[in-house]
Amino acid sequence: MRIADLPTPSLLLDRRRLAANLTAMRGRTVAAGVRLRPHLKTAKSAAVARLALGAAAGPIAVSTLAEAEYFAGHGFTDITLAVGIVPGKLDRAAALLGRGVRLGLLTDDPSTARAIAARGQALGVTFPVHVEIDSGGSRAGLPPGDPTLVEVARILARGPGSSHAGVLTHAGQSYRRRGATAHAEVAATERDSVVAAATLLRAAGLPCPVVNAGSTPTATFGRDWSGVDELRLGLYMFMDLDQHALGVCGVDDIALSVLASVIGHNRRAAHLLLDAGAIALSKDLSADEFRPGTGYSLVCDAAGGAPLPGLAVASVAQEHGIVPLADPALFDRLPVGARVRVLPVHACLTAAAWDHYVVVEAGEPVDRWDRCAGW
Amino acid sequence: MRIADLPTPSLLLDRRRLAANLTAMRGRTVAAGVRLRPHLKTAKSAAVARLALGAAAGPIAVSTLAEAEYFAGHGFTDITLAVGIVPGKLDRAAALLGRGVRLGLLTDDPSTARAIAARGQALGVTFPVHVEIDSGGSRAGLPPGDPTLVEVARILARGPGSSHAGVLTHAGQSYRRRGATAHAEVAATERDSVVAAATLLRAAGLPCPVVNAGSTPTATFGRDWSGVDELRLGLYMFMDLDQHALGVCGVDDIALSVLASVIGHNRRAAHLLLDAGAIALSKDLSADEFRPGTGYSLVCDAAGGAPLPGLAVASVAQEHGIVPLADPALFDRLPVGARVRVLPVHACLTAAAWDHYVVVEAGEPVDRWDRCAGW
Repeated sequence: MRIADLPTPSLLLDRRRLAANLTAMRGRTVAAGVRLRPHLKTAKSAAVARLALGAAAGPIAVSTLAEAEYFAGHGFTDITLAVGIVPGKLDRAAALLGRGVRLGLLTDDPSTARAIAARGQALGVTFPVHVEIDSGGSRAGLPPGDPTLVEVARILARGPGSSHAGVLTHAGQSYRRRGATAHAEVAATERDSVVAAATLLRAAGLPCPVVNAGSTPTATFGRDWSGVDELRLGLYMFMDLDQHALGVCGVDDIALSVLASVIGHNRRAAHLLLDAGAIALSKDLSADEFRPGTGYSLVCDAAGGAPLPGLAVASVAQEHGIVPLADPALFDRLPVGARVRVLPVHACLTAAAWDHYVVVEAGEPVDRWDRCAGW
Repeated sequence: MRIADLPTPSLLLDRRRLAANLTAMRGRTVAAGVRLRPHLKTAKSAAVARLALGAAAGPIAVSTLAEAEYFAGHGFTDITLAVGIVPGKLDRAAALLGRGVRLGLLTDDPSTARAIAARGQALGVTFPVHVEIDSGGSRAGLPPGDPTLVEVARILARGPGSSHAGVLTHAGQSYRRRGATAHAEVAATERDSVVAAATLLRAAGLPCPVVNAGSTPTATFGRDWSGVDELRLGLYMFMDLDQHALGVCGVDDIALSVLASVIGHNRRAAHLLLDAGAIALSKDLSADEFRPGTGYSLVCDAAGGAPLPGLAVASVAQEHGIVPLADPALFDRLPVGARVRVLPVHACLTAAAWDHYVVVEAGEPVDRWDRCAGW
């Protein structure tokens, strides 16, 4: 199928941009001497995971049990579920351990740690569990000096249905800063926090097999990952307009786009309508903090993916994207039925609406890769 | 399966609330003497569509060709695709006509009307096409007095591969007003606009078989639909926090909710974390305009679905919902592993992340209904 024959909207993944992003990050982690654990919460695709790992079924991270089950079904055996676990999910996790998957779990809560240790014993398995560290993002996790950290790790290490797998953090505050210098500072804080947590545990006589950190901005600009074993990140594969707004990538590094049709003109209101709206794009507006006017998407030409100056999706309904046109001549340049590409503000959320990628190279479809979904 | 055994997050649909919402709207349309054409863009479920129609395979509206194909596959034969069509989608539309589905299309563009008439002729079908009217929402459609309206209808009526099916509007401005009086005013404008368009066409000697209007707020509060044949709306089935904020429903009319687990406590930041985030809930914040503090969701008890006072999802990451807790005692009341229900701000977008509903009655699962997705 040629690109002109694709239905709209379609989710396009540019293989060369993807490959360049993957190569760049592998190079950074090799140079830093850390293991790369690609986070597949963004791509949710076995084909992308294999490329990210250089064709091997190496270590990955996921955000849901459904992703863990999908990747286990595709032969991945070293998976970290990097979202806090609850007792009610342990039986599904145990089923994956029973299939030979080393599924790392995550908690920061003593009661949950006790429940994991007990449930593992009852099920005859040993759950490897990381303790989550708050390195400044203030979402989840314990601060590195918190005595609860030692308590949780001790419960997990004692088991018998659990083991202490190490510490894990995500410097979410990197999404609220802009530019290389700021991200390098956050990376240093992320590293210092998680290494301090590991040091505290080791000083208490506890094992800390893995020190895991990561976000796309900090992994891109961090200069020294001493003491960190693994970097865990996902957006770097696709990049998006928010990463661009944060100074992490150029617009032409963004590998993901939505192919859309112009489905209407509204000359009185001076806008055109696309068939990519709130479901196809998501309602994420986060790029506007540092790049006002990005709105729900920037509009690009369909062939090469180059931005059309000044064209953005300013508002969305479920199946309508609304693009204000300052210049009425653009109505003639973009008639009803014309096609454009629009870029994701937040690739994780844009991709979430789709069950597959149309893989493109030099502007034409070359493959189709499935995605998993749900929980 | 008992509700306590459901995985989290799960999408729950309360059958009694759904039935009450459906009955109320059927009653309103019967009283107004108009045909109800349920818009399935929200529910995307054949089971819900049959209930909405009182078990018959009556007229429905959809927002994508994928929905049209799904409902055609479930025996629905009178479907209006209520989003502007483009020439590139006509072959899929023709395939549905070939299966005996009366698929109504929509445009407001003379060039597109000509392309439809020509493509229908080439394919040996007659596309029934509505002309879209702008009744004040300023999204798509022609103003009722616009001479282009007659031009488009004339092209469609001449065919030979098309017929003029009538006029269709959506008073989207109802989503920017609050309360019964305001919505009744918008309903009158919606009616007057679309009836004026039909009158203009008939005065020009053109057929106008169907006059179609509708939105959940205007259909709920409109007092007189004289001249309108059909009301087309979808959110009324489930309702949501935005409809509540607009004064259209009570919180206890909302039939859709997400069952979620508390997956973490952050006592320093005074919030707890849920496993329902940006994908499970969407990033829609529209209820905040009229009900500040709604955020991404209100939090309710898991059993009965009653709101827990003051608890809202204030921010979201992909798989995390963050709920600030003003009272530290709530950490003990909602330990890690506890379950809550959270309500959709915009039901169309919350439901979009899921491939099925868990149907509940008196708080327990009684059925599972599939949904369609994609385009």
